[in-house]
Amino acid sequence: MLVEKAQKLQDIVKSLTEEFAKTASERDKRGGTAKEERDLIRHSGLLRLTAPEQYGGYGENWKRVLHITREMAKVDSSVAHLFGYHFLCLASVELYGTPEQVDYFTKETVENNYFWGNAFNPLDTHVTATKGDNGWVINGKKSFCSGAVDSDRLLISAQKDDGSGVLVAVIPTNRGGVLLGHDWDSFGQRQTDSGSVTFEQVIVHDAEVLDAYEATDSNLFATVRTHIAQSILIHVLLGTAEGAFEVAKDYTKTKTRPWVTSHVDAAINDPYNIYHYGDLFVKLKAADALVHISNELLDNTWALKTSITEEQRGECSIAIATAKVQVVQTALDVTSRVFQMMGARATSAQYNFDRYWRNVRTHTLHDPIDYKIRDLGQYTLNNQYPEISAYS
Amino acid sequence: MLVEKAQKLQDIVKSLTEEFAKTASERDKRGGTAKEERDLIRHSGLLRLTAPEQYGGYGENWKRVLHITREMAKVDSSVAHLFGYHFLCLASVELYGTPEQVDYFTKETVENNYFWGNAFNPLDTHVTATKGDNGWVINGKKSFCSGAVDSDRLLISAQKDDGSGVLVAVIPTNRGGVLLGHDWDSFGQRQTDSGSVTFEQVIVHDAEVLDAYEATDSNLFATVRTHIAQSILIHVLLGTAEGAFEVAKDYTKTKTRPWVTSHVDAAINDPYNIYHYGDLFVKLKAADALVHISNELLDNTWALKTSITEEQRGECSIAIATAKVQVVQTALDVTSRVFQMMGARATSAQYNFDRYWRNVRTHTLHDPIDYKIRDLGQYTLNNQYPEISAYS
Amino acid sequence: MLVEKAQKLQDIVKSLTEEFAKTASERDKRGGTAKEERDLIRHSGLLRLTAPEQYGGYGENWKRVLHITREMAKVDSSVAHLFGYHFLCLASVELYGTPEQVDYFTKETVENNYFWGNAFNPLDTHVTATKGDNGWVINGKKSFCSGAVDSDRLLISAQKDDGSGVLVAVIPTNRGGVLLGHDWDSFGQRQTDSGSVTFEQVIVHDAEVLDAYEATDSNLFATVRTHIAQSILIHVLLGTAEGAFEVAKDYTKTKTRPWVTSHVDAAINDPYNIYHYGDLFVKLKAADALVHISNELLDNTWALKTSITEEQRGECSIAIATAKVQVVQTALDVTSRVFQMMGARATSAQYNFDRYWRNVRTHTLHDPIDYKIRDLGQYTLNNQYPEISAYS
Amino acid sequence: MLVEKAQKLQDIVKSLTEEFAKTASERDKRGGTAKEERDLIRHSGLLRLTAPEQYGGYGENWKRVLHITREMAKVDSSVAHLFGYHFLCLASVELYGTPEQVDYFTKETVENNYFWGNAFNPLDTHVTATKGDNGWVINGKKSFCSGAVDSDRLLISAQKDDGSGVLVAVIPTNRGGVLLGHDWDSFGQRQTDSGSVTFEQVIVHDAEVLDAYEATDSNLFATVRTHIAQSILIHVLLGTAEGAFEVAKDYTKTKTRPWVTSHVDAAINDPYNIYHYGDLFVKLKAADALVHISNELLDNTWALKTSITEEQRGECSIAIATAKVQVVQTALDVTSRVFQMMGARATSAQYNFDRYWRNVRTHTLHDPIDYKIRDLGQYTLNNQYPEISAYS
Repeated sequence: MLVEKAQKLQDIVKSLTEEFAKTASERDKRGGTAKEERDLIRHSGLLRLTAPEQYGGYGENWKRVLHITREMAKVDSSVAHLFGYHFLCLASVELYGTPEQVDYFTKETVENNYFWGNAFNPLDTHVTATKGDNGWVINGKKSFCSGAVDSDRLLISAQKDDGSGVLVAVIPTNRGGVLLGHDWDSFGQRQTDSGSVTFEQVIVHDAEVLDAYEATDSNLFATVRTHIAQSILIHVLLGTAEGAFEVAKDYTKTKTRPWVTSHVDAAINDPYNIYHYGDLFVKLKAADALVHISNELLDNTWALKTSITEEQRGECSIAIATAKVQVVQTALDVTSRVFQMMGARATSAQYNFDRYWRNVRTHTLHDPIDYKIRDLGQYTLNNQYPEISAYS
Repeated sequence: MLVEKAQKLQDIVKSLTEEFAKTASERDKRGGTAKEERDLIRHSGLLRLTAPEQYGGYGENWKRVLHITREMAKVDSSVAHLFGYHFLCLASVELYGTPEQVDYFTKETVENNYFWGNAFNPLDTHVTATKGDNGWVINGKKSFCSGAVDSDRLLISAQKDDGSGVLVAVIPTNRGGVLLGHDWDSFGQRQTDSGSVTFEQVIVHDAEVLDAYEATDSNLFATVRTHIAQSILIHVLLGTAEGAFEVAKDYTKTKTRPWVTSHVDAAINDPYNIYHYGDLFVKLKAADALVHISNELLDNTWALKTSITEEQRGECSIAIATAKVQVVQTALDVTSRVFQMMGARATSAQYNFDRYWRNVRTHTLHDPIDYKIRDLGQYTLNNQYPEISAYS
Repeated sequence: MLVEKAQKLQDIVKSLTEEFAKTASERDKRGGTAKEERDLIRHSGLLRLTAPEQYGGYGENWKRVLHITREMAKVDSSVAHLFGYHFLCLASVELYGTPEQVDYFTKETVENNYFWGNAFNPLDTHVTATKGDNGWVINGKKSFCSGAVDSDRLLISAQKDDGSGVLVAVIPTNRGGVLLGHDWDSFGQRQTDSGSVTFEQVIVHDAEVLDAYEATDSNLFATVRTHIAQSILIHVLLGTAEGAFEVAKDYTKTKTRPWVTSHVDAAINDPYNIYHYGDLFVKLKAADALVHISNELLDNTWALKTSITEEQRGECSIAIATAKVQVVQTALDVTSRVFQMMGARATSAQYNFDRYWRNVRTHTLHDPIDYKIRDLGQYTLNNQYPEISAYS
Repeated sequence: MLVEKAQKLQDIVKSLTEEFAKTASERDKRGGTAKEERDLIRHSGLLRLTAPEQYGGYGENWKRVLHITREMAKVDSSVAHLFGYHFLCLASVELYGTPEQVDYFTKETVENNYFWGNAFNPLDTHVTATKGDNGWVINGKKSFCSGAVDSDRLLISAQKDDGSGVLVAVIPTNRGGVLLGHDWDSFGQRQTDSGSVTFEQVIVHDAEVLDAYEATDSNLFATVRTHIAQSILIHVLLGTAEGAFEVAKDYTKTKTRPWVTSHVDAAINDPYNIYHYGDLFVKLKAADALVHISNELLDNTWALKTSITEEQRGECSIAIATAKVQVVQTALDVTSRVFQMMGARATSAQYNFDRYWRNVRTHTLHDPIDYKIRDLGQYTLNNQYPEISAYS
């Protein structure tokens, strides 16, 4: 049964990634919304991956979500990002909402294969909520709203204008007054639609408000959202690096010519090519090993729910930060260095191999790696857990 | 007088680079030929930079050519490449031609502000020359012909089909049968037009053939062409890195926000930002210092003409290789790392800051840096000069 | 029961390492044989760690051996090396000997707490064996015999002078004609007694010869000895690095003064100190994670015995090489860089902190890390397992 | 004449360094005072290198002092340090004293070949000066007094107990109450005698007090002492690294055996050995090039005397810091990495090759390199010169 399910998921993922791979390079150049790919994911049933089996979901854990995110990122890091963030948004209902809301939104998502998008950032002060009769009215503009375009449900946050804190809610993306910016223009992760969403007098009903738990640092379990977000980012990056590594090896084997003064018969026998591949292999394996540990801890930490202690949250945070540093450094190195083992002709637009570096360079800037290293130093030297924030 | 000339050149360069800078980002996106910029260079008189003063030139040395190439590369590494290669092509007449040919082509260039392009590679076997009545007939396709498009004169090479070696010649680019490929499609150096040139029954007159000296390794002075080519590449790279460094600092000062858990008041006071800039500064200064040395040696080596010894050529080769390793490693590091000190918003298409890395990554693949390091190891460990080749 | 045993072992190890720590620095300066520490290990019963429980041993696996080796290395990498190599020698009986010999030597070792030493290297051609009446006569000099001094049993190898291959045997170290060199003089691992053993007409009885299986590459399981040896080296290195890291943190916390222009109140609040510790922490964690994987594989591979396939051996070899590269690079970095966070006064002889680097630098030269990286490159690029050798 | 002088100096230096090289390794092990070598320097006349020719000196500039320091460091970094610091102490008379004192002490030094030692640190608060009848009485203990042992003249500083600032003076080292600690015990630079000096009621006569200029930051020229001190440290480090590099190449050529799976016929043909040597060569050349620049600037800055501006001091400080970062990073890398190209047997005590790393590791801790990088970042990002201090 379990084996069957795993096999089924594997087949679905294989089928999707093969499809994504065919057009990933072309879509990177085009940018915009990966509409067809998003629909393929909808139809695949993978959007109910974490929903309990009794709801018709797969009842899978974070490890599985992250594994599939990574598999997708090997061929298409934009779509992988959108896929991972869907589950981050869904999880937010569990972090802030009532059991009834979890029940409601899970069912709805399973039944309709809803794709969720993100317009949530409790620190953002540009979106405000005003109390109305049966709910709230939202106004303002939020940037970096990954996956909002073409989403069915939107997780939003806003500053209550009475100063009483942050409003978190789920609304249909097609709610009146929700204007999707279509303005994401970074040189990487070009199909993540991480642009802006503008709210013009958007109505939020009381039932849509997630206020069982506060979206603040004082509600410890809610802050595990950071761990999920960071883990998704890490797997997108690692998958991208692994994708670049595989593509580069294939190119070196089939296309690269031995260097004129190398006096070897083939590029794959060049001692320096071999060395670079070996060196990058170690870094990727180290990344993989650390991710394995942090994923285990994430599932355990998630299972703690509101019983979580600061120490448990902190340990999970440290494991994820450790993995992230290794992954970020490795991904930047791999996606830039592989060109040395491929040679000048690999820069041709027909391959679009620079997209790996562009994707990684963009994605690694979500939050600065220097501060992850700082946090780890504070931990090992001064026994301090990272300051609880939207990033640590 | 000398001071006046230097000041005049500086003014011209300043004026050109200011103009190039306005559109460099947009032109990078567009690719294709930098027609207006090439014409601005033509009109500036800079194409006669190395022509003797008695011909109406500036009588400048390689140091000056390289300095101006680097200045241009700070804002536009494609145009800088074309500019540098013009002089490489012109110098080839001195390396292979008769004094009369030098005289003829120099005058012609000075009088008409001719821009030279490259279709020369003695190792390339895809272009052949067949002896005709008053010259030769050329057929075949040559790739990586930087600057051939929109050039006035074209330096070409072809394998003589009687097996007697390589034919080198200068022809008008608009000669019948010369088909410019307009097919350069790399992700970097996008306006260098480094695509293909196809020769269909192209006539070369005897007077256009440069055969006073062989274009082979046995003609030692002719192989100094490699040193010039490498020096130009190095200055394009170093200028690009310096351009990225300046742009990044400016961005950090004016746009980057301090990180949320850094607890500093401004990004310029972030200890890690400061550290990264300091670290890159050292690398750039080391590159600059090594380039200073290799340029000095290049001018001295060029002055030796055919009296050059293997040792003199070898020492120059070592100095240039040393500079190149430092420049390549630095340029790759700078153009990728600066994003950390700028932050996520610096990936916006409006800045097109990824072009620095794309340009450097493409340009550094001209020949593999691993083999420069290998050559230096052979020199310091085994007292061997680099194998004489088109790259070392 | 299992928990009790684990607790008991932990207590023994804790007691031993506390004792070793008291004198490790002084003994490093002295060099020579760690006689008292070796006797403490003898009396602790740990030398029977891998012997089956029915023999009175602990029946432990390689993971446990390696874990304890690493714990010892945190305070004394020489003694850790000797400890690990004892089990490598013992295991060799299983690799080359008959079940009866395994039975005999295991019992003997358990009953007498025998400490085994190494004079084995099938590639070494300086020691020869001549067939005598009831055995062999050994002559010659073998270097790098870690742990031979003060050992009770000695694993030896010699080239048969009839050209029929390698003789492997176990003899009492006090057998007539065995001359222990006491000549190990490297600047690191100073108490490993890795000097020479000279054999002068040393008699080896037939019953002492291990010839059930050949000590050659054709006997695949026997070549797993390499994996054990490499794993021990890795754990000695990793433990040493971890020991240095802990000692450095303690020093920074208690003795280092804040730098004059840092304007922080304590060295532990220096942003660069914190950063370096964080950076090294990631490297150590990556090493730990990779070692965790390779240890698991080593135990599984060991359990295969003679059913092992080339693929299984190869995969284990790759996992160990991967861990080794990370560990070697990390250990060299940690043991040298920590001084930056401790400051000038930490170079005082009273601390002898340079011994960590000296130990690591010496120990990492056992076999060149460049060839581990090459092997990994061959694997990932060309699908080749490492050439089977005494080192890979 | 100039050529003759240069040749003479070169001969002296060659003769001295050949002598030092014979015993440097043995003396490193012994530690303590390099009495014979110090006397050889005395007799060589080199102690009057900077004294004007009219005094019987060589009238040499800092470039020459630094060059000879570097030459000495190639074989003996301790003696090189003492040699360099002699001139730092002598220069201090020019920085703080009257022309008459410069005259007096220069003559005295030239005539007697006096060797100066250091007990000066204006920041040190452990040594106090009390006003007496015809001078001062000094008490307290000063650490890190490089070259005090066996010196003839001692530069000292003390806090005036009336709170009026710092007393600087020159006294004969054999003055009553001066107790040389002979207690330098670091693992590197073992013959620099950088231990303590204790002052017990030491009389300082008014004529010995250097108070023409204050030894504070307000006296800008006096703070150039920092530049001299840093430049000496840099040359000691660079020379040490160069010495290690030469020794390693020689060892690889003559002793290292090719690795068993390298399938090359000699270690010098191993592609990875060659690569490492090439890589380190570039770093050393970059260091050399930057030192060339900073030395030029140091001589120019020194020539400014009290006309110096903050900008001029700052530019010199930046050039020296740049060189230092490159030199420190290179020296640590070279002295540790060369073992990889020499192999395990190079760790034998007979070579004592670890002394290069020990010397560099100790010497690089004089002041933290992180703060040099920080200073350079402040300069390039924020247009600030380094905070004026005893180290920057």
